[in-house]
Amino acid sequence: MGSQVRVTRAIEFSTSLRYWLPSLSEAENRRRFGRKADQHGHNYRLELTVQGQPDPTTGMVVNLTELKELLEREIMDRFDHRDLNADTSYFDEVPPTPEHFALVIAGILKAALPAGSLERVRLHQDADGFVDVVDPE
Amino acid sequence: MGSQVRVTRAIEFSTSLRYWLPSLSEAENRRRFGRKADQHGHNYRLELTVQGQPDPTTGMVVNLTELKELLEREIMDRFDHRDLNADTSYFDEVPPTPEHFALVIAGILKAALPAGSLERVRLHQDADGFVDVVDPE
Amino acid sequence: MGSQVRVTRAIEFSTSLRYWLPSLSEAENRRRFGRKADQHGHNYRLELTVQGQPDPTTGMVVNLTELKELLEREIMDRFDHRDLNADTSYFDEVPPTPEHFALVIAGILKAALPAGSLERVRLHQDADGFVDVVDPE
Amino acid sequence: MGSQVRVTRAIEFSTSLRYWLPSLSEAENRRRFGRKADQHGHNYRLELTVQGQPDPTTGMVVNLTELKELLEREIMDRFDHRDLNADTSYFDEVPPTPEHFALVIAGILKAALPAGSLERVRLHQDADGFVDVVDPE
Amino acid sequence: MGSQVRVTRAIEFSTSLRYWLPSLSEAENRRRFGRKADQHGHNYRLELTVQGQPDPTTGMVVNLTELKELLEREIMDRFDHRDLNADTSYFDEVPPTPEHFALVIAGILKAALPAGSLERVRLHQDADGFVDVVDPE
Amino acid sequence: MGSQVRVTRAIEFSTSLRYWLPSLSEAENRRRFGRKADQHGHNYRLELTVQGQPDPTTGMVVNLTELKELLEREIMDRFDHRDLNADTSYFDEVPPTPEHFALVIAGILKAALPAGSLERVRLHQDADGFVDVVDPE
Repeated sequence: MGSQVRVTRAIEFSTSLRYWLPSLSEAENRRRFGRKADQHGHNYRLELTVQGQPDPTTGMVVNLTELKELLEREIMDRFDHRDLNADTSYFDEVPPTPEHFALVIAGILKAALPAGSLERVRLHQDADGFVDVVDPE
Repeated sequence: MGSQVRVTRAIEFSTSLRYWLPSLSEAENRRRFGRKADQHGHNYRLELTVQGQPDPTTGMVVNLTELKELLEREIMDRFDHRDLNADTSYFDEVPPTPEHFALVIAGILKAALPAGSLERVRLHQDADGFVDVVDPE
Repeated sequence: MGSQVRVTRAIEFSTSLRYWLPSLSEAENRRRFGRKADQHGHNYRLELTVQGQPDPTTGMVVNLTELKELLEREIMDRFDHRDLNADTSYFDEVPPTPEHFALVIAGILKAALPAGSLERVRLHQDADGFVDVVDPE
Repeated sequence: MGSQVRVTRAIEFSTSLRYWLPSLSEAENRRRFGRKADQHGHNYRLELTVQGQPDPTTGMVVNLTELKELLEREIMDRFDHRDLNADTSYFDEVPPTPEHFALVIAGILKAALPAGSLERVRLHQDADGFVDVVDPE
Repeated sequence: MGSQVRVTRAIEFSTSLRYWLPSLSEAENRRRFGRKADQHGHNYRLELTVQGQPDPTTGMVVNLTELKELLEREIMDRFDHRDLNADTSYFDEVPPTPEHFALVIAGILKAALPAGSLERVRLHQDADGFVDVVDPE
Repeated sequence: MGSQVRVTRAIEFSTSLRYWLPSLSEAENRRRFGRKADQHGHNYRLELTVQGQPDPTTGMVVNLTELKELLEREIMDRFDHRDLNADTSYFDEVPPTPEHFALVIAGILKAALPAGSLERVRLHQDADGFVDVVDPE
């Protein structure tokens, strides 16, 4: 059984944010981003998909203990109970849209996981939809 | 058919908050509230239950158009894309726990709805559970 | 262990309907009911709650085989893949609002179940909310 | 950050239908389609996935205001609170199975969206499953 | 604000079981319980509802840290990754129906919680429904 | 309309299991698999995706009656209300991780379905995630 298998794990975190670029005036921020320029918040749900072959000893594609530690260190410590604008530098030049946030997360996880194992990052911001980054560069 | 019927409508809104009382020192806020003293955010889901008899003309217990306007005016305008601490005065003396937030919402809706019609307010803050205020005083 | 226990079972069915009273003119139906006067449809989800003490032999409050037969005969045969207006007479004088439909279902199930066992009927019409009839007369 | 991002938005609508081809006899329609030849209805949930690069000004792959207007005009106006057989001509020669309905929707949206941006249409008809049209021709 | 508030927390656990009474013959167990006499398993979801007034210092009806410890000790340690028949003595004389299991859990939690605080135990065994024990004796 | 369409159907079943290899000592099983070496259970949710073109007569990619019979015979009869270790031979040499179970199911379904029609098997074991086998060899 040499087939590739994809394993998806989900975590949730709670974050404060607004669409607001320091380089723009208050008027321009409000004109461009509307109500999203106001401070608001989300329970984000992140689905991380990794691919590979099950380890012959454990039967698992990914060591869950190590994966949980990685997600705790790379995602929860950075973003849970944080303000994306004030507490991180990822959104100084781009607003924290779900598109940008998913790309930031995909970049962090791609660097932290074994090469070739990250298949997809899916980010749910609310009940209306979600954003995918597939096989990030 | 004179039975009482209960109608539940759900709305969602996106809010920023922290457990932080201005009357306490930073050290005491952090000691008492832990990580919830950090700025974070939620997609709250509110379920409003009203009871009554269906109107003989429309067949509905509650006029949905009026109910949506009431929820827009009383809840969405006050709390959606807002910071509960900075943008409202409800949490100057009590922290915005789901218990307190549900009581605040129940008080607002009870005052805005016809007497005796508010049966229950249920507030979901995340996937772990929810808070009910039933038949508020 | 003489406590009362409540058991809830859910079923789904697929129904066509419009809010339309034969006694009213087309203009009056459209004025009163708006877009709901157009033929549309729902996957209804019905939750039936019965209460009682577990049977000492089976450990169940309600015999599931009998309950499924009852729901098949009383609800599915009447309403699944049916047009509520054309194929039933329940909505000749009242429109098929979720309030009225829940009352009709509660009346049918109360008559079909042992006296005192029906605790609640909950009817979901879509993702926005639901209607309860509790302890129907 | 030049990666492709996929954005999925979901809408729901309420529709009446039956599997019934005018070119067939009543007996043949019933023989071929069974209970689905009876008038019934669904709350359809449509997930539309578009792909692209985030716009450098807004940070979004797709302008949400324009996308909502497009979905309102192309999907909601055509199918919400409609009878698929009587009120549209899409199902005169093929029955409104979820497969055919998803293909019809994919064709409409592909023509209305910028070339190359439609990645997938997913249509949920009930809780048992769903149908995908991926990268439609 | 002296209103009563109800707080619900959910946990999930993974359990093996069969409906099988040692006092009955194999034939009688199979006759009475059918396929449920075979060893099977569930992810149970337990919702615990407690009621009270928010503590003036923390703003919470129940100390979440203590509640989590209580649920870990009383429920998870007893039932998670356990066989209800072989690893516990609760089902020696009654089968582990959801009704009996909910009554067992309600008894355990009522004894462990402050008097009068347990409002309801709801136990989901699968997607078809759930069982409630309300205000247990 | 010659586009490929993918149809997904979901089923649920209830299974008992433990991670336990007969070739290993009890100590080694417990060391390697931790609490999963204890007998536990799951409600598995299986999503089967097949692809093809809708049949011109029925409008369906797959005959649902035949598909249900196939799933009943190949999956439900083998795994529902069964103990994966004691009642099947699939896990004598590999533990029943979701990865291995999904590969076993994909192999069974690939052999039972028309060549080229099986697109994906997705297996949910609990609320934390799921495993995919895509286009199995």
